[in-house]
Amino acid sequence: MEDVVIRPLDKVTLRDPILIEGLPGVGNVGKLAADYLRDQLPAKPLATIFSKFFPPQVYVSEAGIIRLVSNDLAYWRAPASAAHDLLILGGDYQGISPEGQYEITERVLDFCGQLGVKEVFTLAGFAQGRIVDQPRVLGAATAASRVDAMKKFNVVFSRNDPGGGLIGASGLFLGLGRLFGMEGVCLMGETSGYFVDPRAAEAVLRVLTQALQLPIDFSALQAKAQEIDRIAQKIHEAEQHVEGGPSPGPPAREDLGYIG
Amino acid sequence: MEDVVIRPLDKVTLRDPILIEGLPGVGNVGKLAADYLRDQLPAKPLATIFSKFFPPQVYVSEAGIIRLVSNDLAYWRAPASAAHDLLILGGDYQGISPEGQYEITERVLDFCGQLGVKEVFTLAGFAQGRIVDQPRVLGAATAASRVDAMKKFNVVFSRNDPGGGLIGASGLFLGLGRLFGMEGVCLMGETSGYFVDPRAAEAVLRVLTQALQLPIDFSALQAKAQEIDRIAQKIHEAEQHVEGGPSPGPPAREDLGYIG
Amino acid sequence: MEDVVIRPLDKVTLRDPILIEGLPGVGNVGKLAADYLRDQLPAKPLATIFSKFFPPQVYVSEAGIIRLVSNDLAYWRAPASAAHDLLILGGDYQGISPEGQYEITERVLDFCGQLGVKEVFTLAGFAQGRIVDQPRVLGAATAASRVDAMKKFNVVFSRNDPGGGLIGASGLFLGLGRLFGMEGVCLMGETSGYFVDPRAAEAVLRVLTQALQLPIDFSALQAKAQEIDRIAQKIHEAEQHVEGGPSPGPPAREDLGYIG
Amino acid sequence: MEDVVIRPLDKVTLRDPILIEGLPGVGNVGKLAADYLRDQLPAKPLATIFSKFFPPQVYVSEAGIIRLVSNDLAYWRAPASAAHDLLILGGDYQGISPEGQYEITERVLDFCGQLGVKEVFTLAGFAQGRIVDQPRVLGAATAASRVDAMKKFNVVFSRNDPGGGLIGASGLFLGLGRLFGMEGVCLMGETSGYFVDPRAAEAVLRVLTQALQLPIDFSALQAKAQEIDRIAQKIHEAEQHVEGGPSPGPPAREDLGYIG
Repeated sequence: MEDVVIRPLDKVTLRDPILIEGLPGVGNVGKLAADYLRDQLPAKPLATIFSKFFPPQVYVSEAGIIRLVSNDLAYWRAPASAAHDLLILGGDYQGISPEGQYEITERVLDFCGQLGVKEVFTLAGFAQGRIVDQPRVLGAATAASRVDAMKKFNVVFSRNDPGGGLIGASGLFLGLGRLFGMEGVCLMGETSGYFVDPRAAEAVLRVLTQALQLPIDFSALQAKAQEIDRIAQKIHEAEQHVEGGPSPGPPAREDLGYIG
Repeated sequence: MEDVVIRPLDKVTLRDPILIEGLPGVGNVGKLAADYLRDQLPAKPLATIFSKFFPPQVYVSEAGIIRLVSNDLAYWRAPASAAHDLLILGGDYQGISPEGQYEITERVLDFCGQLGVKEVFTLAGFAQGRIVDQPRVLGAATAASRVDAMKKFNVVFSRNDPGGGLIGASGLFLGLGRLFGMEGVCLMGETSGYFVDPRAAEAVLRVLTQALQLPIDFSALQAKAQEIDRIAQKIHEAEQHVEGGPSPGPPAREDLGYIG
Repeated sequence: MEDVVIRPLDKVTLRDPILIEGLPGVGNVGKLAADYLRDQLPAKPLATIFSKFFPPQVYVSEAGIIRLVSNDLAYWRAPASAAHDLLILGGDYQGISPEGQYEITERVLDFCGQLGVKEVFTLAGFAQGRIVDQPRVLGAATAASRVDAMKKFNVVFSRNDPGGGLIGASGLFLGLGRLFGMEGVCLMGETSGYFVDPRAAEAVLRVLTQALQLPIDFSALQAKAQEIDRIAQKIHEAEQHVEGGPSPGPPAREDLGYIG
Repeated sequence: MEDVVIRPLDKVTLRDPILIEGLPGVGNVGKLAADYLRDQLPAKPLATIFSKFFPPQVYVSEAGIIRLVSNDLAYWRAPASAAHDLLILGGDYQGISPEGQYEITERVLDFCGQLGVKEVFTLAGFAQGRIVDQPRVLGAATAASRVDAMKKFNVVFSRNDPGGGLIGASGLFLGLGRLFGMEGVCLMGETSGYFVDPRAAEAVLRVLTQALQLPIDFSALQAKAQEIDRIAQKIHEAEQHVEGGPSPGPPAREDLGYIG
């Protein structure tokens, strides 16, 4: 089989589309943000991406229906007054080997290039290893002009972070994107790195939607963040109890990992 | 060499064949079921599948004859009154890398598609992590119509199981099968996951043979289940003795893994 | 680059050549036997095999000259009275991944098939996990006729050994060889598995040279075996001393691994 | 995508160019030496090499600009009086899998061969596992003539070192280079192997620049070596203090790994 199979679900012509990437990663920040944006706009399904570089796995819905793991492209037609339609890339996994990461990214960029994409935003989390109350949004970009543009939206370009560079899809879509003549920005929401973080996703999305002038309602994402907070609080209390004495079964810490 | 080599042993035209997959996996349930079905019908050899994604290994028979590890397709011509001939896929291994799983599954599906397959049943075990006295058969399917059809045979479509989806051939044959226009069902026999489980295989086969109206005698499979029970019982007694004091060498627990 | 590169060093026409494979493995038995046979006949260089499935490594000679790791084919022209010329395959490594094992074996078999090979002998060690005083030669073959033929030379075809089959080149050359219409035999010299074992290599070679009626002098191989014995004896004595008290630095056990 | 992508940045015709390879490895000796040579000559950018056999990673500059990890070829035009222009290969990584090492090396050699390269110098560190005060330069070569030529520059061709051969790019560029009709030498600076070692890099470069009659100023490299010495000294003192009692936070040992 082809290493990467892109199955079109629709055939569209888009106006100067911008690609927004948000795949699973640190705190699931990028995926949370991209999925939320797709649902709120809402964007429509454009293509499904299968690959032998994903795990050999299907998901089963509550109704018992299977679905092969994939990445997915959706599109959104902007109002006539706006300059750019959008393409949004989400999915279940990043490629599970280095070669797979390169192959999948290159094929998706090639597909998007044919649709006219010249600009890419990648969304990710940045693990701080500590609880982050007010997540900042860190940035990296393909060109100085993009750095300057994003500073206006309070994106932080830090001399030290990310020190070792970016590993995975959010970096690769920009790095390989340059070989396709694309420019772009990576937006990284600060997060602890310990569990999924809708608050960091909101921080990232607020920058993105300001930059692209997208009117998005954040209330559902905030509700999800509060739900996480409640669970985290219960865990915290339970751990206090455990130190002090026995307590009735609280939600396990690992539950947090599945709230997305 | 080709990544996957399919060597035809016979050339046949089949009537609307249904593919039944049962490869090694949890409790060897799928393989036990598929092999038993093949032997009981009996089905005839159709093709041998070699691949560099299997281990570089040969088996040696008691007579000293080597055989390269493989997957194997057999076919069964149904009586004129029945609608579907059968193809049965068994073998020594699943592909040993994720890429290998995809490549092998895709090649076998392509081969079967050319023979007219539009429907797939995959057989597997579902590890419960505890002794299962009366194994239920859990299901997952490609379409709601299949879910409904299988519920009539007491297949359980559970909201929670399998929670993380299915990994391996039984899921992939359905997930990739859809790209070939095939529909299908995965039947999973509940099993402890600790040793090979002919009883779970029987539960799976009973559903399958009811659904496909195949008259199969289960006595040999039941005898094998009783043999496993006897060994498990001896191990249990031996472990009791060990707790109480020394005992003469009982069958080692790992022996169970080789009874197939 | 090509996955496997076969560089011819000579261009020959051979009479019904038989391929003899002996690559590094258990006790280095196969490699010792094949290298010794090649040196004693002596056989002449025919082709060098490079591959990206070998380690990215060069060896450096005592004179400081580098050599890329490889497998190597040599040929021997039998006297006019004999029916078969020989091809001997030796080398530094087997392929270091399962896929690599398949690819290299398939390419070498294809090359040998073009030279007229229809018969293969693979030489290997069989690890018994205990000191073996009088190594037997165990066998496995592609056909019952070969089993019968080898029994005349006291090759043991055991119901239980090798239980799990053969993993690696010695099995694969036979298993894949059948896809090239080749028949063959694997000869496995019993060995402890703890260090290189010229005695097991001699046992294997004695069967092979009887079967092929090759007049080989074994004195140099026996001298090497005695050298190993002496070192093993010293290690044994040193270990006795260590249990009893301090001793002057004896040869380290790992030295044995490098005597080849 | 292509496994290895070579993007030309300039189009040049060179006079009998010699390739000098220095990629990350033991003590980063080869990379330090090649980078220093490139900066001092100075050499000009010729081509950027991307590959799916590198990590899926981008680096971020202090200004926030991303750059996909790569290897890089630079060229230097020698004065009219000299016989050879130079090509210098440096970069962020060696290929991260054995296959990747072979693929990248072969593609770069092919590219260099088209530019007329017939001679290769590879630069590396040789880990001694102990502090080395006066690093010698060990050698390995493709031919006896090269061994003799390098002995004049006090390169040591030792019967025992490197015992197990060379693993990685510095060996492979010579080993595969021979398949392209290239000859060459590997120069290995002795180093502890514990941290980056500009002193070993200087030793290697002194041999190379003598052999190629390149006038290079070593003061910046020596300054870097002294900086490492100072940090090592502080660590040493700090460790003394730790044994004797508490001490204010000294530079961590791992800091040394990042000084390049």
